[in-house]
Formats: sequence, C-alpha cells, structure tokens
Amino acid sequence: MEKNNYKIGVDISGGDYAPSEIFKGAVNAQKEFHENIVLIGVKKEIEEEARRMKVNLDGFTVVDAPEKIEMSESPVTAVRRKRDSSIVVGSQLLKDGKIDAFVSCGNTGAIVCAATLTLRPIEGVERPGIAILMPTRKNVSILLDAGANIEPKPLHLFQYGIMASSYYKTVLNKENPTVGLLNIGEEETKGTDFVKRVHKLFSASSLNFIGNVEPKELFSGNCDCIICDGLMGNVALKVSEGCGKFMVRSFFELVNQDFFAKIGFLFMGQAFKKIKRIFDYSEYGGALLLGVDGVVIKGHGRSSHIAVKNAIKVAIKELQWELNTEIKRRINEVCNDSRIREILTS
Amino acid sequence: MEKNNYKIGVDISGGDYAPSEIFKGAVNAQKEFHENIVLIGVKKEIEEEARRMKVNLDGFTVVDAPEKIEMSESPVTAVRRKRDSSIVVGSQLLKDGKIDAFVSCGNTGAIVCAATLTLRPIEGVERPGIAILMPTRKNVSILLDAGANIEPKPLHLFQYGIMASSYYKTVLNKENPTVGLLNIGEEETKGTDFVKRVHKLFSASSLNFIGNVEPKELFSGNCDCIICDGLMGNVALKVSEGCGKFMVRSFFELVNQDFFAKIGFLFMGQAFKKIKRIFDYSEYGGALLLGVDGVVIKGHGRSSHIAVKNAIKVAIKELQWELNTEIKRRINEVCNDSRIREILTS
Repeated sequence: MEKNNYKIGVDISGGDYAPSEIFKGAVNAQKEFHENIVLIGVKKEIEEEARRMKVNLDGFTVVDAPEKIEMSESPVTAVRRKRDSSIVVGSQLLKDGKIDAFVSCGNTGAIVCAATLTLRPIEGVERPGIAILMPTRKNVSILLDAGANIEPKPLHLFQYGIMASSYYKTVLNKENPTVGLLNIGEEETKGTDFVKRVHKLFSASSLNFIGNVEPKELFSGNCDCIICDGLMGNVALKVSEGCGKFMVRSFFELVNQDFFAKIGFLFMGQAFKKIKRIFDYSEYGGALLLGVDGVVIKGHGRSSHIAVKNAIKVAIKELQWELNTEIKRRINEVCNDSRIREILTS
Repeated sequence: MEKNNYKIGVDISGGDYAPSEIFKGAVNAQKEFHENIVLIGVKKEIEEEARRMKVNLDGFTVVDAPEKIEMSESPVTAVRRKRDSSIVVGSQLLKDGKIDAFVSCGNTGAIVCAATLTLRPIEGVERPGIAILMPTRKNVSILLDAGANIEPKPLHLFQYGIMASSYYKTVLNKENPTVGLLNIGEEETKGTDFVKRVHKLFSASSLNFIGNVEPKELFSGNCDCIICDGLMGNVALKVSEGCGKFMVRSFFELVNQDFFAKIGFLFMGQAFKKIKRIFDYSEYGGALLLGVDGVVIKGHGRSSHIAVKNAIKVAIKELQWELNTEIKRRINEVCNDSRIREILTS
C-alpha cells in the first residue's frame, strides 16, 4: 500500500475485546500501512497496553477519552451524556479535520448517532442512512436504510438508492449494480402509496433499477442494493438475526435430545461454526453510515486484532477511492435530471 | 367428540397432495367425528377417488367446483377469474350458510382473498386480518396482521390486538394472554407516530398489554399476541421464511464441501428434518383469517390425510368454542370503553 499520510482515528475503548485487541490491531496497522494512527480512548489504559506489549507510543498520537459507551447502552442517551467518550470524541475529531477517518468496533447505534449529530451530510444528501452488508447465496447485498430514518420522504429513499449504488460500484467494484425496492410483492401495483412514489422516481432514473424485490431476495443475491425505509429495514435485519439465533439454538436443543445427532455433531462442528458466523448480520462487514461528510467505519463488535487492522484498511481504501466525492457527484447528477425534478415537484 | 351436526366444507382440490390425501382425510374425519363433510372439488376427481378407495359417496354431500386455483397463482386475479374454483365456491357456501366452516389446504392468499371478499366482517370489526401461528422457544405466538391490511388505521391494529387475544384465550386456552406491539425498540417513544397512537390505545385498554416488542421477540415466546401493520408483518414473516431457507441451504452446501460434516450429517438427519419443518412459518398450523363472519381454516400446503383430519378437527373446535361470538363480544366491550372512545375521537 502506498503511503498517503492519512490520519486514521481508532476507538481503543470500543468492542468486546477492547482495549487490548484494538490496540494491537491499531499498532499492527501502522506498521503495515504506514499511515498515522490516532489512538482514542482512556489514556491510562492505552499506556498500560503499550507497556504490556512493549510498544513505543512516540510514533502515535494519543487522544484521551476518559468515558466509555458500553455495547448495551441506549445510543441516543449515551451520546448525549458521555461527551468525553471515545465515540463522541472521535466523531468530533473527524468533524474538525483532525483525523481523516474514524474506525470503531463499539456500540453501532452510538457510532451512527454521534456521527449523524456531529458531521454534516454530504452536499446534496437529505438524510444519511445506515447500510448493512448482507451475506447472500451469491454476492453481498447492501440493505439501506437499516434504521436511521424511520419516516422518510420518497426523495430520501431515492437518494439511498444512489448512495448504495455508488458504494457498490466504488468499494465493491461492480459496474452498474442493480437497485431494488423492498416491497411485499414484485408487481408495480403492490405496496403503499409511499412505495409507489419511490418506485416512480427509480423508474425514471438512470440507476439500474430492477423494480420491487420481495423480502426473500435479501438472501438470494439477485439484487445488489436493496432499498427501504428504516422501519422496514430494521425489522428485516432484526428478524434475520433473531431467526438465525433461534434456528441455531433450536438445532442445538434437538441435537442434545438425540444420541446419534450428538455423534453427528462432533463431525460437523466446523461447518456449523461457519454458518453461525454468516448469520451475525449486523456485524457482517460492519455497518456503514452513508451520506455523512466523513469516513466512519464500524467494525465487528467481536473484532480480533486482525479484524481491527482490516477495518482500518477499509477506511484507508474509502479515502483513496473518494467514495464521498463519488456520492456527491452522483446525487447531483441523478437528482438534477429533468424527469426526476418533474416527479419531485409534481 | 360429541356430535354437533355441523356441516364442514372441505376443499378437495387444494394442497400439494390433492385430491387423494385430502379426500382420505375428509373421509376419515367423517368416520371419526361424525359431522357432515361437504366435499368441494372437481366432481369427476372426487368420484374417482371414491372408487379407488372403495368409499360410498352416499354419506357425503359433493359440490362440483370444476376450476382449480394453483398454489403459485396470484391470489386476487385467481379469485376474480375462477368463480368456479373450490376456494371461491367454498367461501360462497359458507356465506350462504350451506356449510358451517370451510377447510382448505390450497393457496393461502386466495383463501384469504375469497373469504374477505365473500364474507362480511364480524359485527364491530373494521378490517379482517391474517394471523400466523409462529413457533417460538416457549409457546406459540400469534402474529397479526401478516399482510391483509398494509395501510391500517390505529383502530384496526387495536382491534387486531383484541381478536388475537380472544383467539389465544379461547382456542389456545390461556387466560389473559399478553399483547405486544411490534416496534423497533421497547421504549414508548420509539417508532412512527402511527405506532405511538396505537400504543396509546392499547395502554388505555383492559387488554394485558406489555408494550412495544422488538422483532427478536417473534422467536422468544415472551409475547403471546404480536400486533403490527400488514406491511411490517408480511416483511417479518417473509424474512423469517427466507432466512430459514437460506440457512438450511447454506448448511447443506457447507456439509457437502466437508467430508467429516457429510458423515456427521448421516447421524443427525432426523434432528435436521425437524428444524426444517419448524421454519416453514406460513404453513405452521396454517394461517387464520380473523374478523370475518365464518370459520375458515387454512391447512398446511403439504398436508397429509392426517393433517387434513386435524384441520377439520380445529374447525369443529372453533365452532364449539364460538370464537367469533367471543370476538364480537370483546370488540364491543373493549372498543366501547369510555377512555378508548375518548382517544379515538380526540
């Protein structure tokens, strides 16, 4: 990787294995990628980790953030009250231009909340959205919005389509990714008036719109970017997670009741671990906050030092790819099309 | 079972194993329960089955319904066009009082559509809803509405709560079942304005309302009756189904790639079959159409003759329990409470 002299802020307090795994990942990332790592967290803990791992902190910037937002805290309350937490401090550093990107494996809701409150939207973007990368039978699909905006306007959803498409093209490297509108049936006549209005906007746009997609397509990989309001997206995501956990638990219960199944399980432990991991949706590849003017990466809550290093790598790539510049350009281009403007003003 | 002299209409053309398994189930039900079974289907096919199984049709009423609605057909179109299909004919017979209940293992959407179009709502009920019995880690939970009413008014959802509670109490035999409102968070302040208004109605009612429940509670069994609009309910249901199928398929793929896992699978085939069955949500215990003035039972699409006989038994029980009378009484009682009327008119 070439050296870009980026400043990457890393939340040392966030994640199940914080601070040690995060610290280790950040240190290794600096060694490997030669960018400037800014360690944000409880100063004493950072110094202790450095001592323990025999790391010289001279090569790092350390920013003290004495408060911690726990994984289980209510995001909005935590962000409002804990102004000295690593998540709030990191978002502020990003806003002030003191770091170029912020990487955290902490409380997803708090990261989204702090970033949304602190950072401005990208010029032209009406509302930021939370994108989730869903594993499917083929490739990854992006689900947007997964809960940032529960009572959106049609324009918001339309812009989510543009942003998801930009992300897919730029970061996942696919030309002309498909965009679909999550709905209870494929026919154009299905769904609420709201969904029908969004359908009209997409149909008139230059996006590769494939029409309504049913919830089952969240798992098929037939649609690259699946767009919906934050309420539906959140329910879809949470049901997937709940269903995955329920299946895994039910399976274990059945196995425990059956002698032969127990023997069988000994043989298939590895395969089973893999499927369990696939179903950790909200954590798969992390959540993305699309539409804010700044690079914010949410790593897996259970990130090891290797995962932390990879999340930092993604941040560097997003900066190199200039995703937000691409989003700004595309929002401007697609929304200012005369047909779209006509529909929006009618 | 005591004899009630009920007339139970059975759709001989509906279901994956129609007509033979359905016919056999209907014949056995007549033998066992001593009620009058009305066979609704293609007359020639019914006569052929009777010949093949050496059954004397003299003890049955046969109603010719020469058309068939396939499982894959679009419900609304099929019901409108195929006026001589068993599903449309059966609903009409029920409306005309020529049968007391209608049992079908055919196309769920078509059954709901035909019944809604043909039968009146129960007195006091604003809109019928589709209820699904969801298997959970504890008991069964009722999800209502699963797709009948995608842009409901607050009163509709409130009435769904009353109807689901009546069903749970009467048919599943539990006093004071809990009622929850599906939402993206438990706090009263969460969700859309619409949901907040419904929350207010439930809070003021005499129902055992436990507040907002998150999507994961669809699998926990912590809430007996889970109420939501038809859009959210349909997405939740379809995501559950899609997720279940995806997990099962991914699991098989992983097993196929792994020699040891293949051996293991031989030992656990039985346990695995069970879990696969649990996740056939829309089919589990069938769907219920609550709020229409008539007993309509939707059996499992893959019903064997035993399952058909059981579905007929449920119909008989619903008639004995007088579920619809109970719904009418409770709707009247709960909705006419002065506090509720005040909220509705404010």
